[in-house]
Amino acid sequence: MASEHAPTDAGKSLTKTWFETLRSRICAAFEALEDALDHPQCGDLAPGRFTFRPWQREGGGGGVMGLMQGGRVFEKVGVNVSTVWGEFSPQFKDQIRGAKDDPRFWASGVSLVAHPRNPHVPPAHMNTRHIVTTEGWFGGGADLNPIYPDDAETAAFHERLQQACDGFAPDAYGRFKAWADDYFFIPHRGEPRGVGGIFYDDLVGDFDRHFAFTQAVGEAFLDVYPRLIEAKMRQPWSEAERAHQLVRRGRYVEFNLIYDRGTHFGLKTGGNPEAILMSLPPLVSWP
Amino acid sequence: MASEHAPTDAGKSLTKTWFETLRSRICAAFEALEDALDHPQCGDLAPGRFTFRPWQREGGGGGVMGLMQGGRVFEKVGVNVSTVWGEFSPQFKDQIRGAKDDPRFWASGVSLVAHPRNPHVPPAHMNTRHIVTTEGWFGGGADLNPIYPDDAETAAFHERLQQACDGFAPDAYGRFKAWADDYFFIPHRGEPRGVGGIFYDDLVGDFDRHFAFTQAVGEAFLDVYPRLIEAKMRQPWSEAERAHQLVRRGRYVEFNLIYDRGTHFGLKTGGNPEAILMSLPPLVSWP
Repeated sequence: MASEHAPTDAGKSLTKTWFETLRSRICAAFEALEDALDHPQCGDLAPGRFTFRPWQREGGGGGVMGLMQGGRVFEKVGVNVSTVWGEFSPQFKDQIRGAKDDPRFWASGVSLVAHPRNPHVPPAHMNTRHIVTTEGWFGGGADLNPIYPDDAETAAFHERLQQACDGFAPDAYGRFKAWADDYFFIPHRGEPRGVGGIFYDDLVGDFDRHFAFTQAVGEAFLDVYPRLIEAKMRQPWSEAERAHQLVRRGRYVEFNLIYDRGTHFGLKTGGNPEAILMSLPPLVSWP
Repeated sequence: MASEHAPTDAGKSLTKTWFETLRSRICAAFEALEDALDHPQCGDLAPGRFTFRPWQREGGGGGVMGLMQGGRVFEKVGVNVSTVWGEFSPQFKDQIRGAKDDPRFWASGVSLVAHPRNPHVPPAHMNTRHIVTTEGWFGGGADLNPIYPDDAETAAFHERLQQACDGFAPDAYGRFKAWADDYFFIPHRGEPRGVGGIFYDDLVGDFDRHFAFTQAVGEAFLDVYPRLIEAKMRQPWSEAERAHQLVRRGRYVEFNLIYDRGTHFGLKTGGNPEAILMSLPPLVSWP
């Protein structure tokens, strides 16, 4: 596909297929981790498995919610793919790139939030999307939210994302890391929600190059996150560490419900609340 | 005090003292319930006690956070009194009654959120406040958030609040109940957050009458809520009921963090996040 043309139906089909394929590969990798773990503190839990539930959107399109609950590695992990289309409401169209004079849109994306059982295994978030109005653009990001930050782990996560960024543009990692630091911050706590990652949006114009970058981000996440899990999932944990994990998960909830633009946008525009709130942790405490 | 005059320093002192006194009486009633309960499912938990922690606000004033954690009746209950003053920022003053030309304000209030341990004992919220700019007004409310709604319990709660309202104005209960039904609603879930109560604001002008009403609301809550607790606190509960309680508490978190105006106002204007978020439940699940 020539890189200067606007997104075509081929572009929509390619991106949708990519998000679905990435979802399936991630789910397979996570289920393999479930099979690989035999942890004394997981009692007689069976290896976790994803269940997939389709849903339809009233205005057009829908998605598939993938959810694993009560696994050995993953206390809860949601991986959602959705592909939706329709028209933005008059209030929203002016806020959306390329929708001012033509409110029709198409959007596809994958989003993932993982809440491991072991407090030493870091929770993570990844989301990438392609949106088409009269223009077409890509956005996304990934960040790590360890309960117990660990410099080597943080460095490994960032290095792998940087690799993906370096293949796109020399300044991309610096810009997208700074964007994540700015976005994933909890003002009322005066603290970051995790150890960062990358965040990007508005990659408009060059479909091939931006799609390739979005694929690279997905590949980077699929490569590095299971390795980080594998490195720590056999560690024992204490009751105090479990209690601390439940408190730190509260920060994640605070960020998502108070500040996350995607959550607010979704909930206030009639999105599927079950899919949107699938990111919330399985057990949380505000002692 | 003549009822036609604007709030005076005497009014500020009277209301502040009332909120503090009400707080102390409620805390004493709650501690008495802790002493009265001997429940086999509370193991060897000691009767819960409040701890009180003062805090100071940078711009003027401060408050006292009262918190009971891990009690027999109350898994967590926060009762905060604060009295603060200063000047509204230029952005906020236009939104606040009587602050347009003079941004100075004074505000005092009490707020309470109770999360009982027993899933059959209903959580509750109560908050009343007096705010003074170039005008002075009262606002507040109380609502019940049972895990297992019970018609007789709901009726008792509403009847006692209606009594307080009837002493104020014949149409007050109807108006303030409708206001609560409207306010305590979770749009994205399409469900009320509980079984309602009353909500009122902007009672401006007649200090004596509005202060008397605010006192009556406090008295009603102090009278009825401990009775509702007492009626159910000895019931046994199952693991399934506990699990359902943790899920229902999630709805409370969603409301508070996404929609509650007081929470947003407080967090975004440099309020004390510990005091504001003391309302969050001790343990919550999004399975």
